[in-house]
Amino acid sequence: MDSVRTIDWVDGAVEIIDQTALPDEVRVLRLSTVDGLVDAIRRLAVRGAPALGVAGALGVALAVREYPDPAPAIEAVRTARPTAVNLARGVDRAAARISAGPDAVLAEALRVRDEEIASSAAQGRAGADLVTMLCGGAPRLLTHCNTGALAAVVGGTALAVVAELHRRGALAGVVASETRPLLQGARLTAWELRQLGVPFRVAVDSVGPFLMARGDIDAVIVGADRICANGDVVNKVGTYAHALGARRAGIPFLVVAPESTVDTGTPDGAAVQIEDRGRDEVLRFRGTRTAPDGVDAVNPAFDVTPYDLVTAIVTDRRVIRLDQGDRV
Amino acid sequence: MDSVRTIDWVDGAVEIIDQTALPDEVRVLRLSTVDGLVDAIRRLAVRGAPALGVAGALGVALAVREYPDPAPAIEAVRTARPTAVNLARGVDRAAARISAGPDAVLAEALRVRDEEIASSAAQGRAGADLVTMLCGGAPRLLTHCNTGALAAVVGGTALAVVAELHRRGALAGVVASETRPLLQGARLTAWELRQLGVPFRVAVDSVGPFLMARGDIDAVIVGADRICANGDVVNKVGTYAHALGARRAGIPFLVVAPESTVDTGTPDGAAVQIEDRGRDEVLRFRGTRTAPDGVDAVNPAFDVTPYDLVTAIVTDRRVIRLDQGDRV
Repeated sequence: MDSVRTIDWVDGAVEIIDQTALPDEVRVLRLSTVDGLVDAIRRLAVRGAPALGVAGALGVALAVREYPDPAPAIEAVRTARPTAVNLARGVDRAAARISAGPDAVLAEALRVRDEEIASSAAQGRAGADLVTMLCGGAPRLLTHCNTGALAAVVGGTALAVVAELHRRGALAGVVASETRPLLQGARLTAWELRQLGVPFRVAVDSVGPFLMARGDIDAVIVGADRICANGDVVNKVGTYAHALGARRAGIPFLVVAPESTVDTGTPDGAAVQIEDRGRDEVLRFRGTRTAPDGVDAVNPAFDVTPYDLVTAIVTDRRVIRLDQGDRV
Repeated sequence: MDSVRTIDWVDGAVEIIDQTALPDEVRVLRLSTVDGLVDAIRRLAVRGAPALGVAGALGVALAVREYPDPAPAIEAVRTARPTAVNLARGVDRAAARISAGPDAVLAEALRVRDEEIASSAAQGRAGADLVTMLCGGAPRLLTHCNTGALAAVVGGTALAVVAELHRRGALAGVVASETRPLLQGARLTAWELRQLGVPFRVAVDSVGPFLMARGDIDAVIVGADRICANGDVVNKVGTYAHALGARRAGIPFLVVAPESTVDTGTPDGAAVQIEDRGRDEVLRFRGTRTAPDGVDAVNPAFDVTPYDLVTAIVTDRRVIRLDQGDRV
């Protein structure tokens, strides 16, 4: 995976791996306009908090090339999705360089990209050290959604820890939660784990807490879309249920995310706008309908895991042991 | 719904509504052989603990007509699925009448059917009374899997309570959890709720605990495949996660099931064989694949909700307030 970048700047445009086409096809999309990038972000062709940070920064680089007044286009990138703090952060970092000219904007966007790459490696090492300390040399981990290279540039967050443990020979196996409605676990994480050679099984989302209760899982490891000042973790819907299961089973619940996901300006999870992505994602499944026509659905894309259920947050710069009283 | 029976004996054969065809088509299957019935049970064309009890009893009626020595066929019905106690109970009740002749076997099987119909009405009334007492006159309920007429003969269990509350004008609405992998919630419960005229929304399974945490749900109401002597509840996988969510949110978690589901011969959930239905259900979704080819899955069809998370169990004969120290 380290040879393919999920998102990058290539010859004057943004190139991404189209995640809606996986696992059937590895399709590279070339996005040379802001409209194209915003559309790709909205339909989750590029997704994952770290990747969205890079997308935001590169979007500003596109905007200053495309428009004499780039402000409306930059705002469109900034608000393409509401929940992950990284998107707005990436936009703001690149936009802060506009007065220095397009080359300075692009240079800053590429710095955001390079920092995410370095950050991922640091998270992988620190997270692997922590898992080994808490769970020993052959842990059975459960993960949710996709937190691998496809959610970042290379490597990822929680899945970078999985990959690092596998490289060290210190991992028994992984359960990948399928992650309805869009199946980032079954489609994307399974695809990455197979490429990494990690032993794994896919499971429906609701089975996690039961697997923990019957002793099949040693720790849960997930990413984050936003980490609030009090330690509340906003992440893909389903994360909270896994955290409740881990607490009841007495196993660690670990969150791995770049420092750029930490948002001390948001006091707690209740202050975060949770995106509802509408009924169609729930009522259709890759084109196949799941329910009778004409019914309604509720579809929050994220949930909030209260800080007291989190054992530790691992970033590229620190390990925050919430279970030992550390503060964000 | 009360005019159509999910399973019945019609002109010398078992007739069922084929639940694998819903919601696209209401198809009646006529099963005149034990092999046909066992196949229908295994592939979930007929499912739900009360309906399986009737299927078991009617299966014995088929067996004594089809075979001079019906014992192997009866055993095949008895073991077609392992988790719901009702299937074996229905078989045993009808089989106990074999010495009295085929007509006596059929009469006993029809008694099992008629008792399930009466039981459903009693559960509906008692459950509705309890919900109103605990949650007031306009509760917002969350339910999982399918516990309606399609899981019984008419009426159902937890969904009979929903229907009764709706008839009384004492229900604000329902969230139906889709219930992966086979989508009994999205396909079957949504179909039944629409026929009943109940306001409802479908949701992915993992969202339930978050909806409870943010105050959108007043109580969780589910059925059961087996209730153990200590009050542990074995039910469709995902039930346990909802129970954890209800406990954390401080809302009631209610189980509705016929007395025939109570199995005092099983001490607790750890003693129950949990059926693993294999990888294909997880990795395919109505024919569409969810993950890359060649990956493995873990697929327990049920989970165990520990008795201490259950507020009350409502049967056709009693309300067991586990939260107040009542015993099964």
